[in-house]
Amino acid sequence: MDSEQLREHAHKMVDFIADYYKTIEDFPVLSQVQPGYLGKLLPDSAPNYPDSLQHVLNDIQEKILPGVTHWQSPNYFAYFPSNSSIAGFLGEMLSAGLNIVGFSWITSPAATELETIVLDWLAKALDLPGDFYSTGKVFGQGGGVIQGTASEAVLVVLLAARDKILRRVGRSALPKLVIYASDQAHSALQKACQIGGFDPELCRLLKTDSSTNYALSPDVLSEAISSDIASGLIPFFLCATVGTTSSTAVDPLPALAKIAKTNKIWFHVDAAYAGSACICPEYRHHIDGVEEVDSFNMNAHKWFLTNFDCSLLWVKDRSALIQSLSTNPEYLKNKASQGNMVIDYKDWQIPLGRRFRSLKLWMVLRLYGLEGLRSHVRNHIEMAAYFEELVGQDTRFKVSAPRTFSLVCFRLLPPPNSEDHGNKLNHDLLASVNSTGSVFITHTVLSGEYILRFAVGAPLTEMRHVNVAWQILQDKATALLESS
Amino acid sequence: MDSEQLREHAHKMVDFIADYYKTIEDFPVLSQVQPGYLGKLLPDSAPNYPDSLQHVLNDIQEKILPGVTHWQSPNYFAYFPSNSSIAGFLGEMLSAGLNIVGFSWITSPAATELETIVLDWLAKALDLPGDFYSTGKVFGQGGGVIQGTASEAVLVVLLAARDKILRRVGRSALPKLVIYASDQAHSALQKACQIGGFDPELCRLLKTDSSTNYALSPDVLSEAISSDIASGLIPFFLCATVGTTSSTAVDPLPALAKIAKTNKIWFHVDAAYAGSACICPEYRHHIDGVEEVDSFNMNAHKWFLTNFDCSLLWVKDRSALIQSLSTNPEYLKNKASQGNMVIDYKDWQIPLGRRFRSLKLWMVLRLYGLEGLRSHVRNHIEMAAYFEELVGQDTRFKVSAPRTFSLVCFRLLPPPNSEDHGNKLNHDLLASVNSTGSVFITHTVLSGEYILRFAVGAPLTEMRHVNVAWQILQDKATALLESS
Repeated sequence: MDSEQLREHAHKMVDFIADYYKTIEDFPVLSQVQPGYLGKLLPDSAPNYPDSLQHVLNDIQEKILPGVTHWQSPNYFAYFPSNSSIAGFLGEMLSAGLNIVGFSWITSPAATELETIVLDWLAKALDLPGDFYSTGKVFGQGGGVIQGTASEAVLVVLLAARDKILRRVGRSALPKLVIYASDQAHSALQKACQIGGFDPELCRLLKTDSSTNYALSPDVLSEAISSDIASGLIPFFLCATVGTTSSTAVDPLPALAKIAKTNKIWFHVDAAYAGSACICPEYRHHIDGVEEVDSFNMNAHKWFLTNFDCSLLWVKDRSALIQSLSTNPEYLKNKASQGNMVIDYKDWQIPLGRRFRSLKLWMVLRLYGLEGLRSHVRNHIEMAAYFEELVGQDTRFKVSAPRTFSLVCFRLLPPPNSEDHGNKLNHDLLASVNSTGSVFITHTVLSGEYILRFAVGAPLTEMRHVNVAWQILQDKATALLESS
Repeated sequence: MDSEQLREHAHKMVDFIADYYKTIEDFPVLSQVQPGYLGKLLPDSAPNYPDSLQHVLNDIQEKILPGVTHWQSPNYFAYFPSNSSIAGFLGEMLSAGLNIVGFSWITSPAATELETIVLDWLAKALDLPGDFYSTGKVFGQGGGVIQGTASEAVLVVLLAARDKILRRVGRSALPKLVIYASDQAHSALQKACQIGGFDPELCRLLKTDSSTNYALSPDVLSEAISSDIASGLIPFFLCATVGTTSSTAVDPLPALAKIAKTNKIWFHVDAAYAGSACICPEYRHHIDGVEEVDSFNMNAHKWFLTNFDCSLLWVKDRSALIQSLSTNPEYLKNKASQGNMVIDYKDWQIPLGRRFRSLKLWMVLRLYGLEGLRSHVRNHIEMAAYFEELVGQDTRFKVSAPRTFSLVCFRLLPPPNSEDHGNKLNHDLLASVNSTGSVFITHTVLSGEYILRFAVGAPLTEMRHVNVAWQILQDKATALLESS
């Protein structure tokens, strides 16, 4: 690690990456390679001797980039976005450069303390209740932490809630514990239940439909809880979603919170995608009721210009997390930790080691400011509203669920008297559109209908990209309808 | 994300990082700040408006760096190393630049395929048995995957083993499942047991002592298993360690493997630290017996020049992992996945999202070659052997456990007839040495004795740094012994 060689090589890599962004629209946004393509291009053993950086960069250009699906392309409208930005990228660079492993405060005090501070900044920007702050109104009981992903966020709070109730009712009650969410909750919840040793049958994914726009009905929840209690089961965890993956449905937090409170259930809110919008006053109402929840999660790495991974989790009762996740081996003991003078985030997460992820989030906040981030979000919502309008103007299509943020759910209507009720048609439309390489969108199923999802959120996307995407969708629809 | 602004700003960050490495020895290696230092230096809210990169870089220099513990300093001998290298850093840069989220093959085929290929390369370099390869001798049953940390590696195989046995004996047997390891196993195992819903009493950390150099005794294991079976419990998981955290003890894999096989127990090997050495023919014998294990883990981010995080896990039965960790929501379905034509690594890990981590490992292998990596490891082992010699020459000290790799365990002997049996003395010596800021070492406890650990492994460390560290240790010892 010679500093001058680092300088020289890293400058080369900067130019490589800047050139990549300059030409990003030249690549098919969805990689068009076939399974196994790379094995044919690379040798079957690691080299014994060093190669030059130039050869490696050539291989990246010729062999790796064709196999990349370009999440940063302005033509990327799939899944949810995964924002990269200059600030986020610089933060990742610095984090990789320092390459510290911040499991305990002592292993880099700045890593722990910057995380605590920045999570408090965000709690304030989101107007979260005081008991989610690490410092401030109610000191030291709650707090924020950066997890890798929303999957890990829901897992750690599920474990904290599990162990909290088991300490009260005894370990043998594990097979009686019941988890609630809507059938629109992210699959991460189901995975967390698998991991935590729960009876998979007792992960109740309550049915939703278009009557509530796919939001969880408080009545349905109440009934399920009553029925489970009557059967001798123990309700203990509720996960609500603000901005579901399929259609950005918003579960009604205030009504659900009342039920959770009455039944002494840990109430977690997954706002992985839509949380970012809630820093805008006009969208903040979607998390009204958050005062009454136990934990809250949003992904800064989705729609908040912070490079992957950076998932923000706040809890009101940090001790529950720590009791579930702490270990205290001799070789990690130190004065600051033993004296309870500091936060050791290793006890708030699954892994031991952790990267210096707060740097990138801090740099995003510093270099763009909250107003810059609000414009970013509003700009995408405006483009999504425009796309929704375009869909509405073409009578061959319909919008399938109300647009709340920057996702539009829509489908091509099957021709009258068609045997196919539209699912195959839309499946084919998706494949046809994505095979062009000029646009990438994905799908879901709502009430049995195959639906296309148009998720605006890539930082480079402009109105002209939305127009081109719509043109391709229309053209491919015309071709499909003509051939059917 | 303007490509020219990215270029300009990233070049600035490269110079900042290269200058950091140029001056890295000017910082105290262990940060000397007090808890809460950063809160006094930063405002209590996020800024509303953008600031300049230069202001942010100034703040990093003046406010963040004093709170950093410099894992890349040549004077860092604490815990285990966390290598950064030019190649590893460039790989992180590129991964952050592309910023893809590679949960499924389709989300960037190159990310999945490069990972598969590079893990096969490493399997070959380590001479792992054919059934650990994704491709090759026994296609498609086993395979390698990059986890974030060894904690996640042991967790996912523990879950796979748990669900495999529960499918056979029924879910209600969960409270009867028994896990075995030595009392030297990493605390990650205990944490994994907490997460997986096991009875913590049934995580048997079997006693070791100096008679086996802190390695797990096959006889002790056999007895424990027999006794548990006699009590109606179900042994199902064994974790052995090659290179324990406290003293780099090596559990005897062949003898343990026999016992595991007889009892149909999943046998996992944690070689997080020492695995790197096993690419050298002269150290490969430490993992003899790996042919008979079910899963094997080494951390490329420790001692293999690959920036954190990058933990390599191989399994013989990928289907066990996938059965425990897969979910298949509609919104992630795609032709390649549904057709079982590809690997979707989301089903081999805890989180859904994943970074393009294979890039940095591939670049490390390309830019240094296996021979370069072997020299890297040998060079550190040589320095550790030299340090061991220095300790041996000073009769006030003793080496506390045999040195096998690049860690030396030693302690200052208490003066004759001292009331303190040395624990306070060594505790004070550690504090005194670390407060100089010129060296950072950590400690452990072996057989009740407080032991100092001198772990060589930072890429910048040279013989002269070892000499200086030893001089400081001797000087501080002299001062302590005189004042006592």
